[in-house]
Amino acid sequence: MSAPGSSRTVVPPEHVFDWLDDAAAQRADAGLVRTLRHRLADETALDLAGNDYLGLARDKRVAGAGAAAALRWGAGATGSRLVTGTTELHAELEYELARFCGAQSALVFSSGFAANLGAVTALTGREAAIVTDKYIHASLIEGCRLSRADVAAVAHRDPAAVEHALSTRRRERALVVTDSVFSVDGDLAPLRELAAVVRRQSAALLVDDAHGLGVLGEGGRGAVHAAGLAAEPDVVTTVTLSKSFGAQGGAVLGPRRVIRHLVDTARSFIFDTALAPAATASALAALRVLREEPELADRVRGRAAELAGRLGEAGFGVSVPDGAVVSVRAPGPDEAVRWAAACAEQGVRVGCFRPPSVPDGVSRLRLTARADLSDADLDRAIAVIGETAPPSARG
Amino acid sequence: MSAPGSSRTVVPPEHVFDWLDDAAAQRADAGLVRTLRHRLADETALDLAGNDYLGLARDKRVAGAGAAAALRWGAGATGSRLVTGTTELHAELEYELARFCGAQSALVFSSGFAANLGAVTALTGREAAIVTDKYIHASLIEGCRLSRADVAAVAHRDPAAVEHALSTRRRERALVVTDSVFSVDGDLAPLRELAAVVRRQSAALLVDDAHGLGVLGEGGRGAVHAAGLAAEPDVVTTVTLSKSFGAQGGAVLGPRRVIRHLVDTARSFIFDTALAPAATASALAALRVLREEPELADRVRGRAAELAGRLGEAGFGVSVPDGAVVSVRAPGPDEAVRWAAACAEQGVRVGCFRPPSVPDGVSRLRLTARADLSDADLDRAIAVIGETAPPSARG
Ligand SMILES: Cc1ncc(COP(=O)(O)O)c(C=O)c1O
Ligand SMILES: Cc1ncc(COP(=O)(O)O)c(C=O)c1O
Repeated sequence: MSAPGSSRTVVPPEHVFDWLDDAAAQRADAGLVRTLRHRLADETALDLAGNDYLGLARDKRVAGAGAAAALRWGAGATGSRLVTGTTELHAELEYELARFCGAQSALVFSSGFAANLGAVTALTGREAAIVTDKYIHASLIEGCRLSRADVAAVAHRDPAAVEHALSTRRRERALVVTDSVFSVDGDLAPLRELAAVVRRQSAALLVDDAHGLGVLGEGGRGAVHAAGLAAEPDVVTTVTLSKSFGAQGGAVLGPRRVIRHLVDTARSFIFDTALAPAATASALAALRVLREEPELADRVRGRAAELAGRLGEAGFGVSVPDGAVVSVRAPGPDEAVRWAAACAEQGVRVGCFRPPSVPDGVSRLRLTARADLSDADLDRAIAVIGETAPPSARG
Repeated sequence: MSAPGSSRTVVPPEHVFDWLDDAAAQRADAGLVRTLRHRLADETALDLAGNDYLGLARDKRVAGAGAAAALRWGAGATGSRLVTGTTELHAELEYELARFCGAQSALVFSSGFAANLGAVTALTGREAAIVTDKYIHASLIEGCRLSRADVAAVAHRDPAAVEHALSTRRRERALVVTDSVFSVDGDLAPLRELAAVVRRQSAALLVDDAHGLGVLGEGGRGAVHAAGLAAEPDVVTTVTLSKSFGAQGGAVLGPRRVIRHLVDTARSFIFDTALAPAATASALAALRVLREEPELADRVRGRAAELAGRLGEAGFGVSVPDGAVVSVRAPGPDEAVRWAAACAEQGVRVGCFRPPSVPDGVSRLRLTARADLSDADLDRAIAVIGETAPPSARG
């Protein structure tokens, strides 16, 4: 590195990004190169990798509502929510989502990622402390970084560690941040205990219920509702519309004053084009389907439990699923990639999570159950995963 | 504030968010409260507020392609781009977008906001310096904050200031970040001069062409293409699919190795559900329309020039538009809000930008031209803006 003001040797433009090739070579050595493989519309593989937990993405009512909205309202929202981007559809979705989940109010963002950025940053800031579970989703971590708050990440699912961090904080205002169902292993945060800690310590609680909505709680009202916290004055929930609701987008749910504050101050809300009418309408249609068919939530949990139970019986290191996600340990990143590829060749798509996308450095297959998996689908999945497993994956 | 470890007085949960009401009261005093007003599908107002510059959001080919994609592919992408979220549509859009804009490669994100976060963070980091124009879009600013790079924001449209900051930087690796057309005033960055500076200083250039794509350059290929920089090895462009393309989403365009690097490392790409099939297909359809009707780009620029010229003749403080955005000075934030509201009452929707959404503290009306504005639309807009203007807005 040259000293400030010194004359540098000029690097020719075609070499300015040479460092990217070095970084790529390092990733290749570590087995961490990712490839984009694209799906075809008529793909016949059994999908145990996506997050369409209720099978609603291709439901005619849900996809049809999106198609109708594109024709009626246009392909895009044309502007940010505060200018031209808020349509009647956004207002209806916010109203129905808040009612469904038992919150006072809701605000729709263009993604769950944007909802998390907005909620974390707008509710904290330099003068606040944040205490997080160390396994929270990347979008929450980005929100914490952006917030400039004093951030402490504590042990996984450990209310005592949260309480200790809160009680020794150097800022008056504090927010505890957690996933409800953790995205990698599918385990559930101790929400009631966390709420009690938060109260003893005069903090607020933010729960990302991305993998809880549609899966947990009465009729799929989510983990926050199940914990009896949805209407509490010190609890804020974020959700995504891209998983159980089969669409795209995200939302923040909580006390009315929190939502008003987000409208005025959340930068990922103010400076972002509104969610497209099609996705908004599809999410609304999915919500209505779920209200009419509350058994969908039970069904996906049942399928996940069966999948995990049978893989455990077959000798694999399997997580006990609290929601729809089942994680199966792999011996290492390369084995995980090869295992997932072998499953795909046999027509079963499974997720493959490796560092740095796993918080604990353990590579695994990540399977997701869907409400519409048949018994035959399950049999096929178990057989293929078993046949393709590396020898050291069992026991 | 209590000292660490001291016993705090417990705040009852219903008072934990009291600070939000104080903040709201302060915003109210400053005239900075924002309200969400929702559009109806059959609204008849003349829209000079949205960013649908080519009028394609409601074009039957564009909206129809979105509707068909929702029915064929489902309402959502069901997973992140690296798991199940990449469909044939995403691959096609990336291929055609890169070719159209003259870049080697392209990567689609769920929003322009996410594309900016991903590009800025993945191309910098703690060991890098960033030099930005001080008026860049909020999403780029968030990217800079997230990157942990050493960030210097310099004077607006000032290559010499950029050069000075680069030459005195304390990091070897450096990225210059700018909007092409600035979102508030619609003025154009000196892209060629910036590229020359970047080369003399061994840095790379990132241009957000959100308001240039579809408006500037040959057939709407954007400001980066117009400056002859689209295929350069040291230039990266971000665009949004939510403005001229009438849909939703964003993309990064650039050298192949940059795109590969983003696939492996950009957190707003990896940890975010892919853009929904409907928005992806609509953006692709819009691109094809623009390819077939290159005159759309000329038309929107012509309409913007006429709008600005006539408002200038009428005595208003108007920006000279480089793209589709025309900004009209208002005496203050309250006057701007009342002026915009009066226009809306007369059936003309205009944008109203106030602090903190304006970089220079000057409140203004923000008007956007559209390729499909008729002469009668323009007459009506000029008349209504003139009749509703506060007395001190002229001269
Ligand atoms: C726990 C969690 N939160 C937030 C998100 C982001 O939501 P979205 O993909 O809708 O942006 C995801 C997944 O993508 C997630 O798993
Ligand atoms: C200059 C600029 N960049 C990026 C964005 C973000 O794009 P999107 O709205 O598609 O997220 C916007 C506007 O929203 C913008 O004006």
